[in-house]
Amino acid sequence: VIATALILAGGSGTRFWPASRRRRPKQFLALEGERTLLQATVDRLLPLVPPERIWISTTTELVAEVRRQLPRLASERILAEPCGRNTAPAIAWALQKMPEEARRGAVAVLPSDHRIGDADAFRAALELAFGGALASDRVVALGVLPRWAEVGFGYLELDSTGADASGLRRVVRFREKPDRATAERFVASGRHLWNAGMFVFRGTVLLAHVERFAPELAAGLAAIAAEPAREAELYAQLPAVSIDVAVMEKLDSLATLPLDCGWDDLGSWQALFEVLSPDAAGNRRRGAAVAVDARDNLLVAESGTIAVLGVEGLVVVRSGDAVLVLPRERAQEVRRIVERLEAEGRLDLL
Amino acid sequence: VIATALILAGGSGTRFWPASRRRRPKQFLALEGERTLLQATVDRLLPLVPPERIWISTTTELVAEVRRQLPRLASERILAEPCGRNTAPAIAWALQKMPEEARRGAVAVLPSDHRIGDADAFRAALELAFGGALASDRVVALGVLPRWAEVGFGYLELDSTGADASGLRRVVRFREKPDRATAERFVASGRHLWNAGMFVFRGTVLLAHVERFAPELAAGLAAIAAEPAREAELYAQLPAVSIDVAVMEKLDSLATLPLDCGWDDLGSWQALFEVLSPDAAGNRRRGAAVAVDARDNLLVAESGTIAVLGVEGLVVVRSGDAVLVLPRERAQEVRRIVERLEAEGRLDLL
Repeated sequence: VIATALILAGGSGTRFWPASRRRRPKQFLALEGERTLLQATVDRLLPLVPPERIWISTTTELVAEVRRQLPRLASERILAEPCGRNTAPAIAWALQKMPEEARRGAVAVLPSDHRIGDADAFRAALELAFGGALASDRVVALGVLPRWAEVGFGYLELDSTGADASGLRRVVRFREKPDRATAERFVASGRHLWNAGMFVFRGTVLLAHVERFAPELAAGLAAIAAEPAREAELYAQLPAVSIDVAVMEKLDSLATLPLDCGWDDLGSWQALFEVLSPDAAGNRRRGAAVAVDARDNLLVAESGTIAVLGVEGLVVVRSGDAVLVLPRERAQEVRRIVERLEAEGRLDLL
Repeated sequence: VIATALILAGGSGTRFWPASRRRRPKQFLALEGERTLLQATVDRLLPLVPPERIWISTTTELVAEVRRQLPRLASERILAEPCGRNTAPAIAWALQKMPEEARRGAVAVLPSDHRIGDADAFRAALELAFGGALASDRVVALGVLPRWAEVGFGYLELDSTGADASGLRRVVRFREKPDRATAERFVASGRHLWNAGMFVFRGTVLLAHVERFAPELAAGLAAIAAEPAREAELYAQLPAVSIDVAVMEKLDSLATLPLDCGWDDLGSWQALFEVLSPDAAGNRRRGAAVAVDARDNLLVAESGTIAVLGVEGLVVVRSGDAVLVLPRERAQEVRRIVERLEAEGRLDLL
């Protein structure tokens, strides 16, 4: 089986500020272990996909750091988009850059900023998906068995029939981020999976879907192929749209493989708290931290030392020139600090 | 009036960790304004005492930093004790180093790590004390009018008669740190002052008291005078005792001048909170700090930036390689963190 991985590493975000910054988004952070999320994404593929079949899509701003973090990957397979235009252009453009052989084979599109606790289970599912996508010429979404009624994710709704001979199930439809009651119904139904943004397909099949469902994008890519010298200019004119919206939600034939591999999108400091191991007082620590009479805090010192006394349920982060302190249950509100810093012109901190 | 100031700058402590460290005790910190407490101590004397009459007593470990902070003071008047032996040896030894003329004149012994809000009131009292000490040959304690029933200070108990012609009142006795009820009684009585460790005397008078009440110390100083080459060795053998215990508590004739000058010993991060000006949300800030939906915190960033959200009543300090977070009402417990760091051998942080 010729199987290729395309890792999307062009994202940015503020949820892990101050550890994450504009030039240092979440995929570049070693939140849990010694390896960054990007490095861990490559590491867990290697037993299944050789390095010469791993491609990275990132941005011009981030490409130098991607190369630094992944010295084993040849730099011609680390693609820098001229500018960020969301995932549909990024994926289609990368497929266009691949050699014909790779494009005709199975391709897995994978985010670079998620956690996967059980790499063996992940690879087993991925291997099934590679085979299923090639055998059926369908797009296969790796959907995650929901572990709670999350309102922050989209869901894949399965049909009521079982798996086919390849182990694939059919997706009836995409469901947008639900409200609490709907999410609870989804989880109770046993017929909904979290959309984790992981897809496997034959490259040529996906490009055919792009031609059908996103003709403007297909035309733009054709224009780039015809005039490579104008690539940056033409790329900037591609419609900025996600692959979910441009293609996946429109497919009748979308298949899925339910995945149970300790997946977590690590969407906030609170999510990191939940995956780290507690000490005797329930504190989770990364780096040097001293806790006296303090419980259930997340203490992250990228450098230096954090000392806390008599506090409970806080997030305390020391990263570079900044310190963050907020209650764990308000970890989602980090963006309000980032917005304040933007408003105050403190771009040096972003 | 020949008046000399002897500033004690050899102290160390942990109450302002992580801003204060072994090599950087509290007197070296600019806690409130742009000037350090030591610099502010000198600044407020200058209108009354010229720089050539200001002496500093410190330790060999700290003397370089004292010189750096006080470039206007001639280094021969910045005395480095061979080792720390508490205040009685430090003061008596410094008096011995002074020229005869200074020793025969009035000398004020002053701590270097306190706050004085009203420098004019302080200098007015000090000037009175200089005159009173010379006129009466008595030791004059500058006692602070108590503003609350503090249990962390010693008190000076006044006799019931009024002030004499120099404005001095007689101290009946020293009172050790009282319990809460006693402290409340002291404050209500109107006859008790906080002992702020500030004393004014004719130098020769104090040395005579040392000979009488602390003969072992006097003998040791005489030995040093006789054999200057053995100074370090002999100094280390002096009895390590405070001037209060060695001399002041034993005097029948101790006088005092009540002082109302915004004095604060700045005994904790909470004390600093109380003297800084609040922003609209009651936060007190030093350095760069961003507070979103956060109230009544003390935010001290010696470098870099502190960002807090949704927290109340915390102390957050970023200093050097360390971050401290604890509730304001537990600010006194910083020493528990320092003890933990000592126990863990983290001397680099102390």
